[in-house]
Amino acid sequence: MATVNLEIIARDTKTRARLGKLHTPHGVIETPVFMPVGTQATVKTMSPDELKQIGTKIILSNTYHLFLRPGHELIKQAGGLHKFMNWDGAILTDSGGFQVFSLGDMRKITEEGVEFRSHLDGSKQFLSPEKATEIQTVLGADIIMAFDECTPYPSTYDYAKKSAERNTRWLKRCIKTFNSDDKQALFGIVQGGMYQDLREQSAQEILECDLPGYAIGGLSVGEPKEIMYEVLDYTVPLLPKDKPRYLMGVGSPDALIEGVIRGIDMFDCVLPTRIARNGTAITRYGKLVIRNAQFAADFLPIDESCNCYTCKNYSRAYIRHLLKANEILGLRLMTIHNLYFLLNLMAEIRQAISENRLLEYRNSFFANYGYENQ
Amino acid sequence: MATVNLEIIARDTKTRARLGKLHTPHGVIETPVFMPVGTQATVKTMSPDELKQIGTKIILSNTYHLFLRPGHELIKQAGGLHKFMNWDGAILTDSGGFQVFSLGDMRKITEEGVEFRSHLDGSKQFLSPEKATEIQTVLGADIIMAFDECTPYPSTYDYAKKSAERNTRWLKRCIKTFNSDDKQALFGIVQGGMYQDLREQSAQEILECDLPGYAIGGLSVGEPKEIMYEVLDYTVPLLPKDKPRYLMGVGSPDALIEGVIRGIDMFDCVLPTRIARNGTAITRYGKLVIRNAQFAADFLPIDESCNCYTCKNYSRAYIRHLLKANEILGLRLMTIHNLYFLLNLMAEIRQAISENRLLEYRNSFFANYGYENQ
Repeated sequence: MATVNLEIIARDTKTRARLGKLHTPHGVIETPVFMPVGTQATVKTMSPDELKQIGTKIILSNTYHLFLRPGHELIKQAGGLHKFMNWDGAILTDSGGFQVFSLGDMRKITEEGVEFRSHLDGSKQFLSPEKATEIQTVLGADIIMAFDECTPYPSTYDYAKKSAERNTRWLKRCIKTFNSDDKQALFGIVQGGMYQDLREQSAQEILECDLPGYAIGGLSVGEPKEIMYEVLDYTVPLLPKDKPRYLMGVGSPDALIEGVIRGIDMFDCVLPTRIARNGTAITRYGKLVIRNAQFAADFLPIDESCNCYTCKNYSRAYIRHLLKANEILGLRLMTIHNLYFLLNLMAEIRQAISENRLLEYRNSFFANYGYENQ
Repeated sequence: MATVNLEIIARDTKTRARLGKLHTPHGVIETPVFMPVGTQATVKTMSPDELKQIGTKIILSNTYHLFLRPGHELIKQAGGLHKFMNWDGAILTDSGGFQVFSLGDMRKITEEGVEFRSHLDGSKQFLSPEKATEIQTVLGADIIMAFDECTPYPSTYDYAKKSAERNTRWLKRCIKTFNSDDKQALFGIVQGGMYQDLREQSAQEILECDLPGYAIGGLSVGEPKEIMYEVLDYTVPLLPKDKPRYLMGVGSPDALIEGVIRGIDMFDCVLPTRIARNGTAITRYGKLVIRNAQFAADFLPIDESCNCYTCKNYSRAYIRHLLKANEILGLRLMTIHNLYFLLNLMAEIRQAISENRLLEYRNSFFANYGYENQ
């Protein structure tokens, strides 16, 4: 049995959704799961205890950021990322590829890897499949990701093809570097842009590597959601039935539901925590911009039906005051609410799958949430 | 019995220190006590639950800030400050005097009150004894303070005398406005600068008002600590033995100990929370600037002998990383530590008083802490 493996508990017979238990060296995670993002070895504003209180079992952290600061060697000295940040749940690290490719003029891509300038101090840095794998091995996350290019949207067919083919070559270099004795699992990433035959080619090449899990990359990068769903419709069936499937960078409530319906087990996104800090709450009735003046004297909780710490104890008016006054507690309360909302949504989704009524759940969710919130 | 009263439990026979229970409408507080400051209806970075976990029973909040934002009328609508901020412990509000007098060119003092410009939007505002008392009544704190001028240091004898005499006249206007049915207690403030006869005159005038508690103001405003201790030496004996004594704006460990020795029951200061956010930890061995490079690879806790959440779970290296990366958790962990340190220091002081060994405690504390940290 692999270090990380998915035990499938139940399937929704009307969709591709499945209920599972993802076994990792740091605990068993009920899937489908949303993973809060802890970019710099902390989920912004939250303590590890608070993450646990809202039901978090796995978080994502970013190789690019930790490589530049405080440096993976320091985290190694600390005894690994779990110990450094006082998180004994599971961790998935991305490869840093997404961040370095996003640097635009500040990076240069070759077959060897990506040379780039640090966004912190402008220093010249280099990431490659080998380097990204070495860093992630040192960080010690339960799941580590292949170093690849997240194909931009839009991309020409030619660009998407060349990029996906290079990603396969890079994956093989990651695998060569990776030491599976390290109690970690390496996931591969299917790319191919919005082109079905490229997705098929990418999946076929990557599946030959027989990895413990597969991600779908290059989605939620600016394309209309209908296109994302279409890509999922033809890409998910290419992946093994018994391995975890991870849709990268997706975290809006509607896309989580639609992704699960299409067979996805794992998601991550900075959106819920980022918009929280901008003063926007996610609720089952849609988004509420708590910073807005309309909430100045509104003494209701963000959502009366929500059981999170924030909604049980604080009013919209108080939270708005904190946000306007630049008080950190405001950012904390907003973040707790948004993450709780998404984790609770996933729990409801899992319950619906176990009762074989996911489509009914989807319909009742959208009846409240409203399509304008998609 | 007054709304707020001090029950004296024990006295240290070698000093003026006393152990007490301060009864308030929101709980009984063991004294001597340090009150964390929650300027804008929140103790910066902390949740009310975290404040309770470290033993906080009373906090201070600022009339000036709450008057300007979100406005006392809004807090009234919310059901008062306790309810607005979800704090069911005791609250003391200052009068706003200290802040408006600190505005320099942006304020104009008359016998009637202080006209000033808001630091938020430059709008013209006015605070007077009547207005400050009205606002504090609406906020609903357990203890409210007289509106006065905190005499600056240095001040001429003439200025300090005129200021103290005006403070007495203003106190009488506060009392006239104050409605004691409001389940609140109004404390008077002894001023008089660093002049013994003015302190005596101020105390005498204010004591005639027979208030439930008295503060000593105008200290810790830039004068050498020896002068502050000297003023305490001759001012505290002027105050009633059975009423709480509050030394405003003092919160360094050495001054807390020296203040208690001189008969003080209550303290507040923004220092521990402010320096926490700047990366400086208070420990029994002195201050540690955790931001400094020397702690980059230091995997010890801030203080191995400390039992706070931060020291039990996180290393100096991790906290330094969070601070350097502008992560809010770093500010939280530092604040938790510094407040815990001071509240624990006060608990140790109370224990020492109960065992009649406060001077021995003082000496052993300073043997570790070092005079250079005063």
